[in-house]
Amino acid sequence: MVFPLALHLPARLTLYLSMITSRSSVSVRYAETDMMGVVYHGSYLPWLEVGRTALLKEHGMPYRELESDGFFLPVLEVGLRYLKPAKYDDTVVITTFLREKPTLRIRMDYELHRGDELLVTAFTMHAFIDRNGRPVRPPAAFVAAMDRLFA
Amino acid sequence: MVFPLALHLPARLTLYLSMITSRSSVSVRYAETDMMGVVYHGSYLPWLEVGRTALLKEHGMPYRELESDGFFLPVLEVGLRYLKPAKYDDTVVITTFLREKPTLRIRMDYELHRGDELLVTAFTMHAFIDRNGRPVRPPAAFVAAMDRLFA
Amino acid sequence: MVFPLALHLPARLTLYLSMITSRSSVSVRYAETDMMGVVYHGSYLPWLEVGRTALLKEHGMPYRELESDGFFLPVLEVGLRYLKPAKYDDTVVITTFLREKPTLRIRMDYELHRGDELLVTAFTMHAFIDRNGRPVRPPAAFVAAMDRLFA
Amino acid sequence: MVFPLALHLPARLTLYLSMITSRSSVSVRYAETDMMGVVYHGSYLPWLEVGRTALLKEHGMPYRELESDGFFLPVLEVGLRYLKPAKYDDTVVITTFLREKPTLRIRMDYELHRGDELLVTAFTMHAFIDRNGRPVRPPAAFVAAMDRLFA
Repeated sequence: MVFPLALHLPARLTLYLSMITSRSSVSVRYAETDMMGVVYHGSYLPWLEVGRTALLKEHGMPYRELESDGFFLPVLEVGLRYLKPAKYDDTVVITTFLREKPTLRIRMDYELHRGDELLVTAFTMHAFIDRNGRPVRPPAAFVAAMDRLFA
Repeated sequence: MVFPLALHLPARLTLYLSMITSRSSVSVRYAETDMMGVVYHGSYLPWLEVGRTALLKEHGMPYRELESDGFFLPVLEVGLRYLKPAKYDDTVVITTFLREKPTLRIRMDYELHRGDELLVTAFTMHAFIDRNGRPVRPPAAFVAAMDRLFA
Repeated sequence: MVFPLALHLPARLTLYLSMITSRSSVSVRYAETDMMGVVYHGSYLPWLEVGRTALLKEHGMPYRELESDGFFLPVLEVGLRYLKPAKYDDTVVITTFLREKPTLRIRMDYELHRGDELLVTAFTMHAFIDRNGRPVRPPAAFVAAMDRLFA
Repeated sequence: MVFPLALHLPARLTLYLSMITSRSSVSVRYAETDMMGVVYHGSYLPWLEVGRTALLKEHGMPYRELESDGFFLPVLEVGLRYLKPAKYDDTVVITTFLREKPTLRIRMDYELHRGDELLVTAFTMHAFIDRNGRPVRPPAAFVAAMDRLFA
């Protein structure tokens, strides 16, 4: 919820107060490394997915159910900045942010940490499509959940 | 085809004369290596798939068409022996063998080489299923192609 | 340990009494599925690795330390039988077995379950190599741990 | 090289005349698809790597040699926009662009097509590091090649 106080705060902080977050963690697998001796840069993408899957599930919209209802949420855009490499057997904590109430487009932001160290920042952009790949409005349950979360 | 001569040869050689083979090659990607500095052992599985996709296509049964006709060919069993590691940027040649005429089960064998060096031997076992995952008989076109190939 | 009773039991059961096991679980990622709608057959290999990493760690031989001591444990051979497909968002439990005391070769066996359903059985075979890829004897700490575990 | 004519053209076109490009292609593997029935969004990253590996090799700087000389070129940043999905067995053409002469940072741009259709646009940002992960100046041969290419 947005605290009344927030009305007097700068826009960004207001969003902070009302944003939705979720925390997950993964243990780095050998398969996810490459010959540079650290995690392959492409291996972070499935971890972002782990993050947003958790966020959706925690807020009552398991992605598995969205798909079985005929709604798919492909990635339209992705961006990652690699600050420090994760290594084999590290525990990487993924914090996923839904900073703004989704409209037709849904943006998720991510921060990946090992302990106190920030390793990667990232974002993904999504929109709903139907079984035939055509853009559709978000399902009613999703809209209702977002109205509730960003009330 | 089986040469008449084959009748007098040991079983294995007979099979050799009538077996179907196909050759493909891949260039090793950085993504396919791991921190041991060589190709990750799991990265060879997509290469086996490159091999059998080529074999099916060359013999008039593109797998893409099999699926669009409602026939799927999942892997039921797989086995690999790793003799020498492939490395980044190597050219790996995949030879795929259909040694015996498929019945309900289809077995493919594979040899992976870098130049003259044998790196990996492998096999996969398959059977047709329908869209709902139920075992089905091979499509008529597949049976006809096999009858022709192993005549 | 081997119970005295085991002396009177068939070989296989004897091994059962003394074998080492470990249990891990993974949550199936979207990235691990393929267009057949289920888990890609190659995606199970990193899960086997999750299983044996846990087994080694639980018995005081974290693989990360083995490597930093200069000992590597590549996969020499792998075999999997796929009985039922895992699906997106399933929880898959990996049970890893060290059925026999390792000599120069180390064999691990695996069973993957979703609830009561057995999905996959598998094995991997390993041997120690040094930084230059040459076969070496297992490190002393590993031998000691095995002597203790299979006493 | 920059044609004299270019001096009278807008900045962007000037760059176009002097930029370095390379073309590669991949055949989509089953392993690269996901349960949405199309290519998994993370599977495009190894293809970008195929593109820049070809560009470096064609201009006399094979990445394999850079690494054996102790120079590594990790990805610092990546961004992709997905316009249309690639599908199993498609031939995807990767055009890689080096639009500006690299300084300490090297930016590559990419366009992925299936026939005439633009599927994905992307960029990656890189910088050289040494074996210990410390930033270093590009190797002399690389600088010389860039001086030649962007003369």
